[in-house]
Amino acid sequence: MQTPSTAFAAEPQNTTAQQAVEEQLIRNVLRSFEDCDDLRLKQLMQSLTRHLHAFIRDVQLTETEWNKAIEFLTAVGHITDDRRQEFILLSDILGASMQTININNETYGDATESTVFGPFFVEDAPRIDNGDDIAGAGAGQPCWVEGSVRDTGGNPVPNARIEVWEADEDGFYDVQYTDERVSGRAHLFSDEEGNYRFWGLTPTPYPIPHDGPVGSLLKATGRSPMRASHLHFMVTAPGLRTLVTHIFVRGDELLKYDTVFGVKESLIKDFEQQAAETPTPNGRDLGDRTWARARFDIILAPAES
Amino acid sequence: MQTPSTAFAAEPQNTTAQQAVEEQLIRNVLRSFEDCDDLRLKQLMQSLTRHLHAFIRDVQLTETEWNKAIEFLTAVGHITDDRRQEFILLSDILGASMQTININNETYGDATESTVFGPFFVEDAPRIDNGDDIAGAGAGQPCWVEGSVRDTGGNPVPNARIEVWEADEDGFYDVQYTDERVSGRAHLFSDEEGNYRFWGLTPTPYPIPHDGPVGSLLKATGRSPMRASHLHFMVTAPGLRTLVTHIFVRGDELLKYDTVFGVKESLIKDFEQQAAETPTPNGRDLGDRTWARARFDIILAPAES
Repeated sequence: MQTPSTAFAAEPQNTTAQQAVEEQLIRNVLRSFEDCDDLRLKQLMQSLTRHLHAFIRDVQLTETEWNKAIEFLTAVGHITDDRRQEFILLSDILGASMQTININNETYGDATESTVFGPFFVEDAPRIDNGDDIAGAGAGQPCWVEGSVRDTGGNPVPNARIEVWEADEDGFYDVQYTDERVSGRAHLFSDEEGNYRFWGLTPTPYPIPHDGPVGSLLKATGRSPMRASHLHFMVTAPGLRTLVTHIFVRGDELLKYDTVFGVKESLIKDFEQQAAETPTPNGRDLGDRTWARARFDIILAPAES
Repeated sequence: MQTPSTAFAAEPQNTTAQQAVEEQLIRNVLRSFEDCDDLRLKQLMQSLTRHLHAFIRDVQLTETEWNKAIEFLTAVGHITDDRRQEFILLSDILGASMQTININNETYGDATESTVFGPFFVEDAPRIDNGDDIAGAGAGQPCWVEGSVRDTGGNPVPNARIEVWEADEDGFYDVQYTDERVSGRAHLFSDEEGNYRFWGLTPTPYPIPHDGPVGSLLKATGRSPMRASHLHFMVTAPGLRTLVTHIFVRGDELLKYDTVFGVKESLIKDFEQQAAETPTPNGRDLGDRTWARARFDIILAPAES
């Protein structure tokens, strides 16, 4: 090997100088948070700094791309109002919402898994008795849903509060209509044996709102805005961890592509189609309509798990 | 070692199950971008996914913190308008703007280093001749600035276009006033020997706008909103890399704490204070006012470096 020429030697030298410049900046940003009295906030900001800078350096972000990112975030901010939360949509389609749910609801034995809460829960939904119908004005195929609530020791949990909510067959929740309807949502309580049952609608797929910047991002990246068909549950009982989850419909072709990444294998259930005039479990007369039935047995983790 | 009890064995088993759940989600999000035709966008979104999820898992982000992050970004979006860009401020105080500048303007030999562009540049600033004053209506101590423009081979660069802009002694740029003034900004050209000179104002420190969510974040983390005193330069010449930079004032106590991380050691210059009635370099009569002088020799990298 000959002594490298000056021009050749300059390159690694400059690479090192360049690395030094970039690393010094990161140290400076980290140091700027050193005096933060709130130790958790300090940890959050320093970790955010490390990961944000690692991203910028990994992709060698160009100044044009930085500008586009600023414009995108600005558009997300400007479409967000009291009725529409585009930042949550953004978090959802990046899996950040689902990962936060995962981290804060660790798997515990055979306890039922959690999934995303979504933006359509409403406090003070009507109370129904076991066997009643939650569908109200919502259109769709009637669906009988039943199951048990137990703890991880296998003991029945009577009187657990079960909130259920879902979209109608047109893909809309009641709050998305302007007529103030309350439909497709209710709460009920498990009975003395820890069992529950109600009539709802067979879930159908629907898109997340996709006429804004998040929709544009999905389109630009070749992604669908569709969510897999699902029915929401939130189950609470004293001494047990609150469960926020969905059940999904086995056979739904969107199970693999749910755009907010809410699907977990254990939450996919059989929705068995019933021919018209098949007798219903509680004698409800559905005339000549077909219906479906699903079973969802719920297991709640201990509260402090 | 005894066989571990069931309770003991369950913990590592669940930790593994938990990791599997979190890692599966990340794989699902990465896969969702696989069909993106724009390969650069695909790279950006997949890298963003990896780093965003690494952050969430590192800090074990709580659901309350996730909600606060959504609220914070919403507030940043809502204060942003045509005159105020809070997302850029956010990028600035996290060092993301400065790092993007670093990455796209690699160190090259002894070429002058870059720093942040900032939001206060204006196209079509007045042209001045060498030795003229850019201060206009802006108040402050007169400051003589001079230097040379050369390439990395040491050759003078005549006729380089030099844009300069700065805040007045009250910390405001002309565009921050409502009276349409044009002051503290101009462009000039290096002379036949590649030298330049002009009168400006001795730079003084000022805060970034800090009455919004970014200001609240700075306050919560114990950080100052102040920028170190500086004078902006943008220098362009055919065949040479455009230089966007500042010069800073040696001795300014804010050099260590510049809230947008723009300071680089090589950009700190001596601003020599001159007693009243010290003769000026170009015979300008300043009466009984003190003045300052600084020298900034500029070296431009090749365009394709």
